[in-house]
Amino acid sequence: MKILVVHGPNLNLLGKREPEVYGSTTIDEINSSLEKEAQNLGTEIEFSQSNSEGDIVDRIQRAMGNIDGIVINPAAYTHTSIAIRDAIASTGIPTVEVHISNIYRREDFRKVSYISGVALGVISGLGVNSYLLGLRGLVNHLKK
Amino acid sequence: MKILVVHGPNLNLLGKREPEVYGSTTIDEINSSLEKEAQNLGTEIEFSQSNSEGDIVDRIQRAMGNIDGIVINPAAYTHTSIAIRDAIASTGIPTVEVHISNIYRREDFRKVSYISGVALGVISGLGVNSYLLGLRGLVNHLKK
Amino acid sequence: MKILVVHGPNLNLLGKREPEVYGSTTIDEINSSLEKEAQNLGTEIEFSQSNSEGDIVDRIQRAMGNIDGIVINPAAYTHTSIAIRDAIASTGIPTVEVHISNIYRREDFRKVSYISGVALGVISGLGVNSYLLGLRGLVNHLKK
Amino acid sequence: MKILVVHGPNLNLLGKREPEVYGSTTIDEINSSLEKEAQNLGTEIEFSQSNSEGDIVDRIQRAMGNIDGIVINPAAYTHTSIAIRDAIASTGIPTVEVHISNIYRREDFRKVSYISGVALGVISGLGVNSYLLGLRGLVNHLKK
Amino acid sequence: MKILVVHGPNLNLLGKREPEVYGSTTIDEINSSLEKEAQNLGTEIEFSQSNSEGDIVDRIQRAMGNIDGIVINPAAYTHTSIAIRDAIASTGIPTVEVHISNIYRREDFRKVSYISGVALGVISGLGVNSYLLGLRGLVNHLKK
Amino acid sequence: MKILVVHGPNLNLLGKREPEVYGSTTIDEINSSLEKEAQNLGTEIEFSQSNSEGDIVDRIQRAMGNIDGIVINPAAYTHTSIAIRDAIASTGIPTVEVHISNIYRREDFRKVSYISGVALGVISGLGVNSYLLGLRGLVNHLKK
Amino acid sequence: MKILVVHGPNLNLLGKREPEVYGSTTIDEINSSLEKEAQNLGTEIEFSQSNSEGDIVDRIQRAMGNIDGIVINPAAYTHTSIAIRDAIASTGIPTVEVHISNIYRREDFRKVSYISGVALGVISGLGVNSYLLGLRGLVNHLKK
Amino acid sequence: MKILVVHGPNLNLLGKREPEVYGSTTIDEINSSLEKEAQNLGTEIEFSQSNSEGDIVDRIQRAMGNIDGIVINPAAYTHTSIAIRDAIASTGIPTVEVHISNIYRREDFRKVSYISGVALGVISGLGVNSYLLGLRGLVNHLKK
Amino acid sequence: MKILVVHGPNLNLLGKREPEVYGSTTIDEINSSLEKEAQNLGTEIEFSQSNSEGDIVDRIQRAMGNIDGIVINPAAYTHTSIAIRDAIASTGIPTVEVHISNIYRREDFRKVSYISGVALGVISGLGVNSYLLGLRGLVNHLKK
Amino acid sequence: MKILVVHGPNLNLLGKREPEVYGSTTIDEINSSLEKEAQNLGTEIEFSQSNSEGDIVDRIQRAMGNIDGIVINPAAYTHTSIAIRDAIASTGIPTVEVHISNIYRREDFRKVSYISGVALGVISGLGVNSYLLGLRGLVNHLKK
Amino acid sequence: MKILVVHGPNLNLLGKREPEVYGSTTIDEINSSLEKEAQNLGTEIEFSQSNSEGDIVDRIQRAMGNIDGIVINPAAYTHTSIAIRDAIASTGIPTVEVHISNIYRREDFRKVSYISGVALGVISGLGVNSYLLGLRGLVNHLKK
Amino acid sequence: MKILVVHGPNLNLLGKREPEVYGSTTIDEINSSLEKEAQNLGTEIEFSQSNSEGDIVDRIQRAMGNIDGIVINPAAYTHTSIAIRDAIASTGIPTVEVHISNIYRREDFRKVSYISGVALGVISGLGVNSYLLGLRGLVNHLKK
Repeated sequence: MKILVVHGPNLNLLGKREPEVYGSTTIDEINSSLEKEAQNLGTEIEFSQSNSEGDIVDRIQRAMGNIDGIVINPAAYTHTSIAIRDAIASTGIPTVEVHISNIYRREDFRKVSYISGVALGVISGLGVNSYLLGLRGLVNHLKK
Repeated sequence: MKILVVHGPNLNLLGKREPEVYGSTTIDEINSSLEKEAQNLGTEIEFSQSNSEGDIVDRIQRAMGNIDGIVINPAAYTHTSIAIRDAIASTGIPTVEVHISNIYRREDFRKVSYISGVALGVISGLGVNSYLLGLRGLVNHLKK
Repeated sequence: MKILVVHGPNLNLLGKREPEVYGSTTIDEINSSLEKEAQNLGTEIEFSQSNSEGDIVDRIQRAMGNIDGIVINPAAYTHTSIAIRDAIASTGIPTVEVHISNIYRREDFRKVSYISGVALGVISGLGVNSYLLGLRGLVNHLKK
Repeated sequence: MKILVVHGPNLNLLGKREPEVYGSTTIDEINSSLEKEAQNLGTEIEFSQSNSEGDIVDRIQRAMGNIDGIVINPAAYTHTSIAIRDAIASTGIPTVEVHISNIYRREDFRKVSYISGVALGVISGLGVNSYLLGLRGLVNHLKK
Repeated sequence: MKILVVHGPNLNLLGKREPEVYGSTTIDEINSSLEKEAQNLGTEIEFSQSNSEGDIVDRIQRAMGNIDGIVINPAAYTHTSIAIRDAIASTGIPTVEVHISNIYRREDFRKVSYISGVALGVISGLGVNSYLLGLRGLVNHLKK
Repeated sequence: MKILVVHGPNLNLLGKREPEVYGSTTIDEINSSLEKEAQNLGTEIEFSQSNSEGDIVDRIQRAMGNIDGIVINPAAYTHTSIAIRDAIASTGIPTVEVHISNIYRREDFRKVSYISGVALGVISGLGVNSYLLGLRGLVNHLKK
Repeated sequence: MKILVVHGPNLNLLGKREPEVYGSTTIDEINSSLEKEAQNLGTEIEFSQSNSEGDIVDRIQRAMGNIDGIVINPAAYTHTSIAIRDAIASTGIPTVEVHISNIYRREDFRKVSYISGVALGVISGLGVNSYLLGLRGLVNHLKK
Repeated sequence: MKILVVHGPNLNLLGKREPEVYGSTTIDEINSSLEKEAQNLGTEIEFSQSNSEGDIVDRIQRAMGNIDGIVINPAAYTHTSIAIRDAIASTGIPTVEVHISNIYRREDFRKVSYISGVALGVISGLGVNSYLLGLRGLVNHLKK
Repeated sequence: MKILVVHGPNLNLLGKREPEVYGSTTIDEINSSLEKEAQNLGTEIEFSQSNSEGDIVDRIQRAMGNIDGIVINPAAYTHTSIAIRDAIASTGIPTVEVHISNIYRREDFRKVSYISGVALGVISGLGVNSYLLGLRGLVNHLKK
Repeated sequence: MKILVVHGPNLNLLGKREPEVYGSTTIDEINSSLEKEAQNLGTEIEFSQSNSEGDIVDRIQRAMGNIDGIVINPAAYTHTSIAIRDAIASTGIPTVEVHISNIYRREDFRKVSYISGVALGVISGLGVNSYLLGLRGLVNHLKK
Repeated sequence: MKILVVHGPNLNLLGKREPEVYGSTTIDEINSSLEKEAQNLGTEIEFSQSNSEGDIVDRIQRAMGNIDGIVINPAAYTHTSIAIRDAIASTGIPTVEVHISNIYRREDFRKVSYISGVALGVISGLGVNSYLLGLRGLVNHLKK
Repeated sequence: MKILVVHGPNLNLLGKREPEVYGSTTIDEINSSLEKEAQNLGTEIEFSQSNSEGDIVDRIQRAMGNIDGIVINPAAYTHTSIAIRDAIASTGIPTVEVHISNIYRREDFRKVSYISGVALGVISGLGVNSYLLGLRGLVNHLKK
């Protein structure tokens, strides 16, 4: 079993800026934690990050046939990208949407997600743990 | 460390009715799984279920001083109860909101949550796993 | 065949207060009329009234397995209770929603019903007759 | 006592098309049932059907002075015709609005009725019974 | 195969008034073009125009059993007629909605169509060509 | 110069029903007053009334070439008819919209007019005088 | 009988600026025309203009006891002044609201009037004639 | 004269939690202050608190015949309970609604009150004084 | 300690017009009552009334340095004046907003207040008592 | 004459995924059909597909000076891209917007198009034929 | 060339109150800076400040014929004054709207400006510099 | 000190297309003017333009550590890009948003900016001067 982790725009800055909102963990540290959790769960894992909506759509499309599930933090594209939504729906790959901060406690425009409507599930507000729990939930689902 | 699990209205029917929406697992089976996961995580756990908004507010208030965190599935009260929201905010007990089904894929009136605004985090759509991951995420948070 | 009649909040005051809105018939007189109509229709009938949303949910749940249909006047909870909606949907008991006054001629917030979406049918504005016609319509439906 | 039954647009197709929505009873069969029920209730009854908003307004106006009550299924004009509303209000003839299907479970634009605000009462979702109960409720009201 | 073309209200004035919006082609010239195109496509064609919503509903109903597809320009009724929508849905005749001008570039109230939700397809803004392309698209669909 | 007066749906009942809203003057008395005012103003005048939207559209279209201006009280169609709006715009005949009652003091759905956007002017709330002043304003405008 | 004419903000510029919107008649010319029409109607007339909301409220209040009716063109304050609305309602002086241009054909924020809800009637879009017809309608009303 | 004070959900925690929002006075201290003020005003007083909407409805109903006026702080139920609104309206007991904090300066969902529409008056934002002034205003009103 | 009372537009007509809405007490009588209450509370008091938004802003600005608190009934400006809101916020003088009638039971546009967001507290619907209780609440607050 | 066909995001998956929504024709087969139709119409044709909004803007800009018209299926960007809208408007190249499925019968967020406001015309819901008819309509327009 | 600077309500308090929002510069200091900048730009300059909407309208009207451009900070009237908007539009004097703070980062009701729709340009959020840049931008524009 | 100028999508076409909206100055000419102004202000300056949202996010991120301030004209992305907003917020680089045309006078969807909420200030409608004044305002701010 192989899982793809997709980090959306500006997440490459994690841990470097605005720690009061996003904490001080970097994206590399998150990926390391996910790597370990993947080993625990007996699954392979791959990572990608992009600031471009089109690149994320491309990445999801390329996952067809070689990836069993996706953990995605769409960041800003959560609220504006129907193209990513369509990519998830079209490829049909089970996908868990995760957010580090609790998006329901932020600006109004962050309370609406185009992705949730096609996601298997959504995890929000548990910090870096959102990713780890998302991975675990996805793998449990795929093993059923 | 001690965790309280609060099941909202109609969740006592879980596994008995509408399995196509909520699956076939009963509330007792969920509680058993949570019991085991709590042991793994080295924490005590308690359960409660009520169909009454007022009872749930009472239960949360009584948790002050003896409970370290709450996992709540507010079910229908997610969308209509400011009283439960205020109980969580007033007692200040860290709380994770969980939902078995993905509420963002259901009727419009189920897409708004009064609870999310005071919750630590939200997990939705991962079936019974939503509870287990919520417990894990909460305990991890409390151990920090 | 057995029918449950559920009267929502403040209906115990019927006939005692605000007769210009609700008429001068008391809840006991309505129940007597329903009793007679039930005999005509050859069905058993039971009554309950509560001011508490949770109690009404409990009552509907207890109806599973021994009640064939419900006539409910949810009164104020018509417009605010998703929990009662979910109880009706979860138990799957055929339910007719009735209102003494025409709710579409009153305040705007009374024009929206959470219950109608899961009800078999809705009868509004025909006074005490709303109950009697609701009972008749329900029994006819069940006999089919 | 004399009652007029008004069937709105497309109801002449009843029982011939879309039986999964409207059942398989034809408009003639409904009228026969109403005829019998009228005899039981000791009242005369007349029928009309039109696809034209203006014709329905004309028909209601002509009812002044010779009709005691109206049972109307305005169908599509429920949601778009203020002219029919005004005709009912202007003639002052007591009118019960009926719908075969539960309009509150259909498209959003079918949830708003211009007619309900001037109707004596509304019956929705009980199939052909909606007409029969509407007739009964109306006659009971007129006999008071 | 036989196609019915329905022209809605005020379209009989085409080419005579407001040429800056609707061009200078008359309805007779449109019908001639459609006639020729029908011959090319090997299909029979019939025409009707009415300013009355009820007449258009009547015409669509009469098409049952002898017409295979409809090309309709509902004009003003696009935005106000649920009765025409229901006629199309009830008869089940495949229907293509066409507009001479691009309705999405006009007043806000012209951007919403009750018809599109039951149409096979929609063609807007291509002038008289909207009719011809609609006919062609409809015939192609029916031949499949 | 020749003016057409168009009375919309239910206005044939004027003076006979709901005098508290519309006064006790009949449509014939209004037409007589208009007849006299037309003589004073040195203009011919014609009258029509219909309960049908399509008939009113037809009447306006037939006015092309022989009528110089229209005084219209669209009644209920004020708020629902884009077809009448389009007829006025397409024929290009200067039109004054009049209302007996002040539509801005009634139900919310009567505060929006599809006709005002294409009318020369609007007169509302001055009783039968609304017609007389509308005629006068229209004739003054045409004489310029 | 004595009538007060109130011109709202910027109307002192009439005829001097934006003639394409408001025509080329000056406020003095309007007042002259009104003066003559008042003589025809056998009534006294007084004029006031102010750019200040408070001054207009003051003026209306001072009219109590010596003015029988008001013709007001509230201009920009039509859409923003509840204070002028309250002054008209409080003094109870019959008031006709007039507008030179058709406010329903302009920006959206000009389509809502706080004044109409307390006015006897409203005349819009007939140019300077709006004033003259408003005066006539008001005097006719007062003579009844 | 006898006054009932009703404290809504979570107010039993007053002074114990979130003092920055609600101050440090406990519910017992508020009741003591009200007791004294009642003596000053020469009136009896009774207290109740509940976290349950149904209990509050019950309490208001039981007040009929033995209570002259109610001071209620509906807390979270201010914004969600039509049942409490109906209880106040049905019993007809004069009721003053009070809030410790200024609800108009908080979250949007706290700015709407179902209770205000049936209350005699509303006092918000004056801390514990809101209760004392509410009691005083109510007693003054009842003495008139 | 010195308190300023600001009466907004049209309040100078109090007791003279519309007694069914505002009662029969005049503004002078209110000021006399306030004068006495101020003596009881041991504070000086000053009064002002204006129909002009600008004058009220001026008056509030002049209060800086010599007034300790303001009781304001902004009347119509409650709902339209951000300038008065800003004056209160800028001067930082503690201000209690009062209304004679219950604004939440009136027209929709009276339910929104620009002032409440910067007021210490709000009192509505208790008649002249709203002023007296407002004064008392303000003085109590200032003495703390 | 030369036409550019622009396929938006995820359309490269056509025919491979979700055939129940989009049919089983691949993008290559569509392009072949368009190629043939272009030959019939005597025009050259070019194709492009991209998942990136920026790339599509670039492609449209490069079309200036060498392309006479564009057929675009903006897919998900239909509803979110003002940049593509601006590219079409800025280059001024006549553009027909096409959709395979009827976007007016899908989710609400797919009913709004930023592109339609600058398009020559729109064709929706006719399957692959939408492209062919769009090409034909565009070429006919350009030949005029 | 001569420029008029108009300061709206409460701006006379600048630098004296709420420095965390508006900074510590006084209106006199701003005017001095503007004076110097005007000299640099070779233009005359005049200043006015008023808390009254009517006075500001008067001032703008008086500018006709002797002022070439206006720099206005409408403060609170930005969001409520159509009268000032109309004054700017009627006089036709080129006007730049300036704001010290970034109004798009403040309360929702400050995000809408009636003035922007008639302004040459808008500068917001650059502190006192907003005025200086506004002056420079206006003079540059007028010199063209 | 070093400033980065970011031009959004389609701005590379400036001066070449739609001069009636955007003027006839090209992007190169704007950059030349900015270059000179930068010299006057004693600051370095760099330029970038892209039609891709992702590229703009990348560019802003790369600015961290070597750029002191950004002047951005986000063009179409103003209204749709939360990703660019987050990039500005995350990097924390002071940013001035500029627009050549007055966006508040254009289509409704151009009146909302995701960028303004994180910008230091906004300048709109002053043509090419918007850039120059933005640069000047930014440099002045940074020098403080």
